[in-house]
Amino acid sequence: MTFSATDHEHMARALALAERGLCTTTPNPRVGCVLVRDGHIVGEGWHARAGEPHAEVHALRAAGEQARGATAYVTLEPCSHHGRTPPCADALIAAGVGRVVAAMQDPNPRVAGQGLARLRAAGIDTASGLLEAQARELNIGFIARMTRGRPWLRVKSAATLDGKTALDNGASQWITGEAARLDGHRWRARACAILTGIGTVRADDPQLSVRGVPCERQPRKVLVDARLEVSPQARILAGCDCLIATASTDGKRAARLHDAGAEILVLPNDAGKVDLGALLGELAGRGINEVHAEAGFGLNGSLLNEGWADELLMYYAPLLVGDAAQGLFRLPQLETLEAARRLRVIDLRMLGSDLRLIARPEN
Amino acid sequence: MTFSATDHEHMARALALAERGLCTTTPNPRVGCVLVRDGHIVGEGWHARAGEPHAEVHALRAAGEQARGATAYVTLEPCSHHGRTPPCADALIAAGVGRVVAAMQDPNPRVAGQGLARLRAAGIDTASGLLEAQARELNIGFIARMTRGRPWLRVKSAATLDGKTALDNGASQWITGEAARLDGHRWRARACAILTGIGTVRADDPQLSVRGVPCERQPRKVLVDARLEVSPQARILAGCDCLIATASTDGKRAARLHDAGAEILVLPNDAGKVDLGALLGELAGRGINEVHAEAGFGLNGSLLNEGWADELLMYYAPLLVGDAAQGLFRLPQLETLEAARRLRVIDLRMLGSDLRLIARPEN
Repeated sequence: MTFSATDHEHMARALALAERGLCTTTPNPRVGCVLVRDGHIVGEGWHARAGEPHAEVHALRAAGEQARGATAYVTLEPCSHHGRTPPCADALIAAGVGRVVAAMQDPNPRVAGQGLARLRAAGIDTASGLLEAQARELNIGFIARMTRGRPWLRVKSAATLDGKTALDNGASQWITGEAARLDGHRWRARACAILTGIGTVRADDPQLSVRGVPCERQPRKVLVDARLEVSPQARILAGCDCLIATASTDGKRAARLHDAGAEILVLPNDAGKVDLGALLGELAGRGINEVHAEAGFGLNGSLLNEGWADELLMYYAPLLVGDAAQGLFRLPQLETLEAARRLRVIDLRMLGSDLRLIARPEN
Repeated sequence: MTFSATDHEHMARALALAERGLCTTTPNPRVGCVLVRDGHIVGEGWHARAGEPHAEVHALRAAGEQARGATAYVTLEPCSHHGRTPPCADALIAAGVGRVVAAMQDPNPRVAGQGLARLRAAGIDTASGLLEAQARELNIGFIARMTRGRPWLRVKSAATLDGKTALDNGASQWITGEAARLDGHRWRARACAILTGIGTVRADDPQLSVRGVPCERQPRKVLVDARLEVSPQARILAGCDCLIATASTDGKRAARLHDAGAEILVLPNDAGKVDLGALLGELAGRGINEVHAEAGFGLNGSLLNEGWADELLMYYAPLLVGDAAQGLFRLPQLETLEAARRLRVIDLRMLGSDLRLIARPEN
């Protein structure tokens, strides 16, 4: 399948439109659509919120009669099933478009090629795979949930250049500067859920809400608290339905936290801790695509060591504090460097005077 | 003082020429010279080795009679004193150049403006300060030695992304990849001396020579070994006159190491360790401009903590090994993050799959 430069240009535009839904489409994927007739864009649209029209419908409405014979560029295969809205494939057929180019097939098993098949059956020229890598990145969480039943887990950390997250006495706030902190909030904003551990709550009592950047929707908060030790007054519980994953069956504690607005999920593993895999599966079942973890040494270490971490979002402040301070990840002691967790660096940049590195585990 | 675009262009060329002497001019500064007449370059030169002609002389020879009335662009003020070669200011006067533009004054107290003064006294138009920041970077070690009597000290480290230089069992070799290792050798090659500690020698038995990159001259090796514990068979001593700084007056050990080709320098401080400030002063006295330290946790920590480190050359391999491993710098335990060593990032890039960061302490 080959695509023209014009095809690339229009799909790039559709991807940019899709990105406008970055923080709001959950649990749906981010999707953009551009309708082009005779070299001119006649309609554009993107999906904004679940329950509202899909990208294709917005674009068709904008194009009106001009959709007839147009090429539709869509960042994800048009749906073929009745969800909360009718199938987009049918809408495109009804509008009489002449060609549909998708960046990728829908990983949703209820679609998975059937949308394009339906279009082809109606005599419409279809193609898929244009700027597919970019489209996959945009919906990396949705794809993860659809194809493996587990959200995409991004682990955020902030450390000094010698890999320390806090001093020995616990002092840790404001390691990084303003630009890095705001960037961190932008990553929170796109996540469907923010995950932390009881250690972080006890040390810092964070709110873990999105602040300082545009945000229509606060991600769900998820707390790993094996023994239900969190105080009902903890800030993470304030004004939201925090989900607490625990290994404890202490009904009295659970009731108190329930009264504080929390939902309790008992997911013990054999070690008497929270079964993190089961928790992630549970989150996927609730439509969570991207999980943003902001935890400490212990939970970060477990997420990495047990293989749940898909991506590390690492901020480094240009500081050195020495070895007495608290490290980044609790990992089992290694005998050889070959046994180390190896990462692939995806992105590296300066944010103010801090560094930001995005990396993904390779093994 | 304002300079034209053409002035900038020619000085940039002179700086590029100067850089050809990066690894060979020690103890002299790196200097380049361009002679321009009627808009054309009529002569170029750079200083290659101490004792050989200065950049101006090479350029004047190349220009011959065309030097008359030309503008000379020099990256450092022409010298006014008789060193191992006669004063360049005199040579420029004799050649009849019409104008001399220097990037910076010579920080050498034996010159310090007198070169330019001499030119002016001969009726030559002079100017200084063009691309001065770049010229200062190029001779940062020479300037440091001339103005503060201490070399520029660059501390190289290689660590994992969680700030570890070695595993708990000492396994440390080959943390970074080929591109980073070669880059490290390039930094060694430009240094006048390579400094390490007895801990590193015992753990890794490194050669600390320049390998794998062009190198006409091996930097002097300097070992901090407070108790003269190094083995006469250590690879750092092989085939060179390694300088061992010690606090020990054990004559027998000293004699054995002397027989192995080493020079012993007894520089104790009150704590019975090596007085690092005195050692750096001693190195400056021997014409050492840039010191490249490749040491471990202890000596690196002391160099940073005592304020001797001017620059950190930090390589990070995309690995995570956990907290049981060996950290980057031994520093005193801190009570607040405000007390942390703060760095200014000068350069950040990827080298193969590794990161390289250059930073300078700000406090």
